[in-house]
Amino acid sequence: MSTDTSANVTALGEPATPPRGPVTSASYSITVRLTADGDPASIGRIATAVGSAGGAVTAIDVVDSRPDGLTVDVTCSAADAAHSEEMVQALRDLPGVKVRKVSDRTFLLHLGGKLEIASRVPLKTRDDLSMAYTPGVARVCMALAEHPEDVRRLTIKGNTVAVVTDGSAVLGLGNIGPGAAMPVMEGKAALFKRFADIDAWPICLDTQDVDEIVRTVELIAPGFGGINLEDIAAPRCFEIEARLREKLDIPVFHDDQHGTAIVALAALRNALRVVDKELGEVKVVVAGGGAAGTAIVSLLLEAGVGSVLVWDREGILSPDDERLSGAKLELARRTNPAGERGELPQALTGADVFIGVSAGNILPVEALANMNERAVVFPMANPTPEVDPVRARQYAAVVASGRSDLPNQINNVLAFPGVFRGLLDARATEISTGMLLAAADALAAVVRDDQLNANYIIPSVFDPAATEAVAHAVADQARHEPGATAEVTDRTSF
Amino acid sequence: MSTDTSANVTALGEPATPPRGPVTSASYSITVRLTADGDPASIGRIATAVGSAGGAVTAIDVVDSRPDGLTVDVTCSAADAAHSEEMVQALRDLPGVKVRKVSDRTFLLHLGGKLEIASRVPLKTRDDLSMAYTPGVARVCMALAEHPEDVRRLTIKGNTVAVVTDGSAVLGLGNIGPGAAMPVMEGKAALFKRFADIDAWPICLDTQDVDEIVRTVELIAPGFGGINLEDIAAPRCFEIEARLREKLDIPVFHDDQHGTAIVALAALRNALRVVDKELGEVKVVVAGGGAAGTAIVSLLLEAGVGSVLVWDREGILSPDDERLSGAKLELARRTNPAGERGELPQALTGADVFIGVSAGNILPVEALANMNERAVVFPMANPTPEVDPVRARQYAAVVASGRSDLPNQINNVLAFPGVFRGLLDARATEISTGMLLAAADALAAVVRDDQLNANYIIPSVFDPAATEAVAHAVADQARHEPGATAEVTDRTSF
Repeated sequence: MSTDTSANVTALGEPATPPRGPVTSASYSITVRLTADGDPASIGRIATAVGSAGGAVTAIDVVDSRPDGLTVDVTCSAADAAHSEEMVQALRDLPGVKVRKVSDRTFLLHLGGKLEIASRVPLKTRDDLSMAYTPGVARVCMALAEHPEDVRRLTIKGNTVAVVTDGSAVLGLGNIGPGAAMPVMEGKAALFKRFADIDAWPICLDTQDVDEIVRTVELIAPGFGGINLEDIAAPRCFEIEARLREKLDIPVFHDDQHGTAIVALAALRNALRVVDKELGEVKVVVAGGGAAGTAIVSLLLEAGVGSVLVWDREGILSPDDERLSGAKLELARRTNPAGERGELPQALTGADVFIGVSAGNILPVEALANMNERAVVFPMANPTPEVDPVRARQYAAVVASGRSDLPNQINNVLAFPGVFRGLLDARATEISTGMLLAAADALAAVVRDDQLNANYIIPSVFDPAATEAVAHAVADQARHEPGATAEVTDRTSF
Repeated sequence: MSTDTSANVTALGEPATPPRGPVTSASYSITVRLTADGDPASIGRIATAVGSAGGAVTAIDVVDSRPDGLTVDVTCSAADAAHSEEMVQALRDLPGVKVRKVSDRTFLLHLGGKLEIASRVPLKTRDDLSMAYTPGVARVCMALAEHPEDVRRLTIKGNTVAVVTDGSAVLGLGNIGPGAAMPVMEGKAALFKRFADIDAWPICLDTQDVDEIVRTVELIAPGFGGINLEDIAAPRCFEIEARLREKLDIPVFHDDQHGTAIVALAALRNALRVVDKELGEVKVVVAGGGAAGTAIVSLLLEAGVGSVLVWDREGILSPDDERLSGAKLELARRTNPAGERGELPQALTGADVFIGVSAGNILPVEALANMNERAVVFPMANPTPEVDPVRARQYAAVVASGRSDLPNQINNVLAFPGVFRGLLDARATEISTGMLLAAADALAAVVRDDQLNANYIIPSVFDPAATEAVAHAVADQARHEPGATAEVTDRTSF
């Protein structure tokens, strides 16, 4: 969840200048119901008013037309909440127009929630009931009591993932708790279905205690084929994941960590193809020592990156820094044995790659001049990148970010659906670093040599080849690792 | 889950004699793939062979036809597993016929599980993603953090139920554990959707410790609008339910208890209309002091039944019985202050109503002669009733059981979908005895005076009026009880 899918403006070419006026987004889209007098020019004036206020009209529906006037639903995108209000005010100011109701389309979409259950079996007749439920179901239960290894085959376990959060680090919103986190977890589950036909269910936990989270997930695990941890704050998330991996016989994946790391590594591999540098020779600086940063560093080191430095609020993470402890001290030891100190611009001196998973606007664009030639810059903070990706192009050969309105969007949806599809298909009992690396390599390979360029190092989120490639790679790897998959049963009795 | 939906033979009239030959059921249905030689009489011989073995052919599909023979799929119902084997043997014995494969239709139906998730929102375009997921979802999350009472309205919480079990008392199969219990919980969830459009999800817990079960359900509760406890053994289930009701702000319902009690009370009300007796004047004997029996007794007493005695393996439950403790002693105190002792036939002396929720064939039919005139007999044990319902008709004016092949099937599916539909519609925070009584009365009232007779005291499971009536009654009652429903919000901003 550390990347986004924001904004509805897509510019695959490099913009010569930043976009003029506000960038509007469907996520801030409103529908205004208004009545207008009988003047035939009304509709035109309405569209003009929205346009003048910087909004984008996406639909005008005449709901009712009478001799004395029209009832019209105007749907338009705004840049943010204040901008919506400006557009409504512009409509209110029109002579002969009365605003009746303003509806927020994003909220309307969420009414009643975003998921539902469907039965995969018919339940029309008594015969149907007698097979799907009692008495027929009893024979299936008895068979599973005798052969527990068949649970993955004869129940939903084989295709289900629990999306588990404690609501402690939801998007960039912080610790908003389990109830308020639900819309994100439902959205994630909807993406699992949309991109990989996986049945995921949100489990939002009313505790932020590590022991309780671990024990609860352990206790609900029998019905799930995988656990996707989501939006759990660091460093708590590291311990939760490690302990669950130890205890459970299904794979445990923290998307904010590993999903981000897979996509970042895939993008980096392809960026290095563009600038013709080798992974083992580049110096990488990662900004942000939280969940995502830690996982990215680990995966880069496993992939063979020569040198990594991590910068965080404390400066360059150094083993000599007495303020550090726990996970961050460990990260410093793994990345900075020489004990370099300093701020981000110093860290970037002589670096080949910058990867940001920290906060918006923390890096003056000029600092990129300290980097080596043919630099690769991934400011991935959401919604605002660490440095303006458009201006970064002046200093870097390849730029990628979380922004959907610029080339090279780094988005976790390129990884997590395929990762779990592969794990479930292989009946994986665990997830390994080998599988993460295989996923990243497969994702990178989706971009063919003849397609690859500085503006296209990573596939679009809507490219079905991404999920498919990742799924195959993960399943293959799982099947080749000893003990990583559950016994495959093939009883002939049914 | 204490009633069933067995067998595909429905006899609404009273059978003069027990059915001849084995009663076949779709739940034991098999599909046999076989090849037969070119003899045109082959198909006829195949059907005859199945019929001679007592099976019922439901379909013959010719899969392939060549000059030298046919490939045929024969689907037929059997009475049980041994009977299936007899039918297959009868086919094997046919000259010119070769059995290639035998598939069990109930197991085939369970392959891959019985539930899936569907997205209620479109996810086709980037605009869709930006509203259902990031960045748009963030505004919904922030709104919920500010107004937690809107979680029921803007997330799936408003329509979801967790079907929670520890696998300790699954159907009549006993303690088979959480994995083997999954098919029942999935079936239950499918019934919730089918009968009440409720989105229910199975939660099968890997513990049978009361404290752990209570704590786990408490921690996962934020995402659910109700908790349906299922197939948890007595007396543990009583404490779990009571503690969860105390802790949670969503209703907690143990279907094995209260679903059964609602349907039994509804059937009893109508049976007493048939025999023209008053609830306050009848003497009722309940066989079985477990989850269902205890709940039935409680609801009957709340409804105003004059006298109830409970019989269990220990004999008539009596407060003087030193072997009793806990829930059973409490039940004895509430039902038998005079300290009557004895076995079931003694208990039935002078009784008007027998309700069995114990075990099959525990009562000699002649013992029913001890009951008062115009007796009402509900032997509800599954799959085999306490006393043969057909023979019981010699002694009783009204008989009802769990059997789907006889009149008056008492089936929980008449209650639980409507109960939760009503609770969710009313945004109920708890479930009360008043709501259970309202549900039973509404269910009884579905059978109109001009329909009511000894063979029709309870609606069919497929009568949509049942769920609808129960839902309305429960929602009405919830809205009228102080503090039983959550605040209804109606923000105009979206």
